[in-house]
Amino acid sequence: MAKRKGFVFQSSEIYGGLNGCWDYGPLGVELLRNIKEEWWKAMTYRDDVEGLDASILMHPKVWEASGHVENFTDPMIDCKQCKSRFRLDAFADSFSDKKQKKAIEQLKSKLNGKDELIKKIDDIYANPGDENPFDILLEDKDLGKMLLEELNCPQCGNKNTFTEARKFNLMFKTFIGPVEDSGSVVFLRPETAQGIFVNFLNVQNASRQKLPFGIAQIGKAFRNEINTKNFLFRTREFEQMEMQFLIHPSEDTKWYEYWKEMRMEWYKSLGMTPSKLRYHDHPTDKLAHYAKDATDIEYEFPFGWGEIEGIHNRTDFDLTRHEEFSGKSLKYFDENKKEKYIPYIIETSAGASRSFMAFLIDAYYEEEVKGEKRVVLKFQPRLAPIKAAIFPLVNKDGMPEIARNIEVDLRKSLKVFYDDKGAVGRRYRRQDEAGTPYCITIDNQTLEDKTVTVRERDSMEQERVAADQLTGYILSKLHNQ
Amino acid sequence: MAKRKGFVFQSSEIYGGLNGCWDYGPLGVELLRNIKEEWWKAMTYRDDVEGLDASILMHPKVWEASGHVENFTDPMIDCKQCKSRFRLDAFADSFSDKKQKKAIEQLKSKLNGKDELIKKIDDIYANPGDENPFDILLEDKDLGKMLLEELNCPQCGNKNTFTEARKFNLMFKTFIGPVEDSGSVVFLRPETAQGIFVNFLNVQNASRQKLPFGIAQIGKAFRNEINTKNFLFRTREFEQMEMQFLIHPSEDTKWYEYWKEMRMEWYKSLGMTPSKLRYHDHPTDKLAHYAKDATDIEYEFPFGWGEIEGIHNRTDFDLTRHEEFSGKSLKYFDENKKEKYIPYIIETSAGASRSFMAFLIDAYYEEEVKGEKRVVLKFQPRLAPIKAAIFPLVNKDGMPEIARNIEVDLRKSLKVFYDDKGAVGRRYRRQDEAGTPYCITIDNQTLEDKTVTVRERDSMEQERVAADQLTGYILSKLHNQ
Repeated sequence: MAKRKGFVFQSSEIYGGLNGCWDYGPLGVELLRNIKEEWWKAMTYRDDVEGLDASILMHPKVWEASGHVENFTDPMIDCKQCKSRFRLDAFADSFSDKKQKKAIEQLKSKLNGKDELIKKIDDIYANPGDENPFDILLEDKDLGKMLLEELNCPQCGNKNTFTEARKFNLMFKTFIGPVEDSGSVVFLRPETAQGIFVNFLNVQNASRQKLPFGIAQIGKAFRNEINTKNFLFRTREFEQMEMQFLIHPSEDTKWYEYWKEMRMEWYKSLGMTPSKLRYHDHPTDKLAHYAKDATDIEYEFPFGWGEIEGIHNRTDFDLTRHEEFSGKSLKYFDENKKEKYIPYIIETSAGASRSFMAFLIDAYYEEEVKGEKRVVLKFQPRLAPIKAAIFPLVNKDGMPEIARNIEVDLRKSLKVFYDDKGAVGRRYRRQDEAGTPYCITIDNQTLEDKTVTVRERDSMEQERVAADQLTGYILSKLHNQ
Repeated sequence: MAKRKGFVFQSSEIYGGLNGCWDYGPLGVELLRNIKEEWWKAMTYRDDVEGLDASILMHPKVWEASGHVENFTDPMIDCKQCKSRFRLDAFADSFSDKKQKKAIEQLKSKLNGKDELIKKIDDIYANPGDENPFDILLEDKDLGKMLLEELNCPQCGNKNTFTEARKFNLMFKTFIGPVEDSGSVVFLRPETAQGIFVNFLNVQNASRQKLPFGIAQIGKAFRNEINTKNFLFRTREFEQMEMQFLIHPSEDTKWYEYWKEMRMEWYKSLGMTPSKLRYHDHPTDKLAHYAKDATDIEYEFPFGWGEIEGIHNRTDFDLTRHEEFSGKSLKYFDENKKEKYIPYIIETSAGASRSFMAFLIDAYYEEEVKGEKRVVLKFQPRLAPIKAAIFPLVNKDGMPEIARNIEVDLRKSLKVFYDDKGAVGRRYRRQDEAGTPYCITIDNQTLEDKTVTVRERDSMEQERVAADQLTGYILSKLHNQ
């Protein structure tokens, strides 16, 4: 349906596609734009947040300071036979539960007598946490190697064929300038946040903001994921909507809680089903190296719960590192308190592409109407790709002209769709599938009293409205919902 | 001023910047968003154009089909001593007029007696055209080599130090997936157009459009330029606003003329000075390999006339090539005429970043007001980063509350700015420099009759407006201008 209705296409489809890259079609681009617009308004139409649009290519030192060059890696192994590559942390997924258990048992029976090693294994699995069946691979190099000897390559079936684990950096690299050498390597940003950190003082000076204040930006980011999956959920090219809120270190808990709540409210205010939304607080021992507190806002996708946004207390980690690596002071001076310090940062990091998928899936309903199945996308009207459709009902004198005039008038402020083909029932059905909240029919009565009917998508109730009041009527509905 | 007011910052400035990359600050991001929004509305809020948002990374075959792998190159030479690299077509710019002439004369005197070669040189310079003083380098390999022998390296001063000219591809390349080999090379798109071509049938099927119709998209593109220059004019990362209009081949002239006019009108309708806009038609012998007709819309920048948009008749070149390289039919079937054909394409390709610079420069005025200099950015109000500023004049009982209520109310629909600091004259001046079209003052009279003054930026005239009518007042001004 995403393809047929023009929400999402495979990138470069005529060439067989490009793994992890997707294109947004006519309806998709409008939905995505509307999500981003609502986010931008919610986050920057306030007096304590400024906007920014930083470039995708940045100075390579940025990624040394951020820790990405060193830490943004996945451990991987290769099969020497078939050259397949596997992420170590997800390697267990390639095997059935039975095979997983068998491999561990075989390993243990081989170690018969070496009680110390067997105890080590038991200790690893006694640890609560992610419950990775092959946790051994990540926790103990030697035992991991021995475990691999018990396993066949999930791709080609060969045994004793795996290389040692190596680190693989997930940043895309390219070369700037004419010479391709290590001195010209730059990276496609793996997150938009760093563009905000390095611009902190520029933004503060230009906007004359005082702490606390935030900097918001929407933009593309890139990760060379080994395993892309779940449609738009894990892709190589994606869009983020990030805001970094700069505060005095003593106020971190207050603002962390504030933004946690605000961000959850945002999804609900745009109609996302509350029972499909939840927080997932990260346990202290699983926090990223820069974070003091972290929570995910998760949505219940058909494939399970998945993160659509993260709220993090990043402390002064990022600005301290950039100060260190750039040699430029990134301290804030509080004129009232005569205090100089590196701000703490509370980050709200939302996936535009993931939100897109969540809003699209959440809007999908199949209903029975008068014995027939109706597929309807119940987008919050402000998110709907097309706001109104115009249906002239009969081809009488004056009728198409009135309909076209209404179209021209509405188009000045709204994305609308004109359809004069086929039975009106089919026209409604097409717009229901596109999620269009208002369908306007021009009928015989229009010629008499200059009113039209407006049919609301979800209730399917109709109302007569004066033709020359339509723009205001729809705009105020959008505004107040 | 671009930096001080927060329009544009150098990318990664604290690390010394990244050549050819720029960041848009708080005012800049709003101006850029407004330009893109106006373009999107003008181009896609019509019934014959659909929107699209294709990915930046595309299948590498796309760039073979488009001709970019083969042709998107600059000829370059290196200095063997200092390793500096120079674009051949711009090499003359590294020398003074005097040195240029002297080098040609020296070459000629060396060729004394070889009349045929001297005639060749004279013929090259007899050719009208781009008037490149070192045209010889591009036109004749052997003579070019001899000319280089007369020249010192502009960087290190050494003589007889240049390599032979080589082709340098301007696409940024990266590697997708875990292995860095030729099989995994992908490119950052150097233009957004190809994303439209390869999606033509997907868009047409989903939208049920019939020819003629267009596909529009806004997005980043990347070119590894050797010589970046003129601020935002030639950068390595930039944003395009492109529309490809698909038509029957017999209608190409009609639609080419139509879009040529429409696009010029767009800049004028957004307030760009008409006398600083012109067409530059490409002479037939200078057309790109895919084009039958091409014109630039040029703006007169402080550094001279420069292209801000190109309108091209690309014929059926692109779709024919993609059909050939993908093996998929990209023909359109006209059901009425029972005719099957590859559409012609009229392209309108605007630079969002270049338009940004043109709109910014065009808006800049210095005026004398009551004996003082006033710097004012006279943006068309819809383009202005901030739509209205709110100034409470005195700190009386009830006054800040009224002002804050007005702020909250306006913020629901508009980007506004609240300023209660300093003399009102200074507050006006700051907003003039930001290009804010309306400044609202809350004064003593407001407490009595609930009206405020609205001061218009360009005329500086003031009007009293009921406080509860402000949103409608400003929205209708924006809408009708």
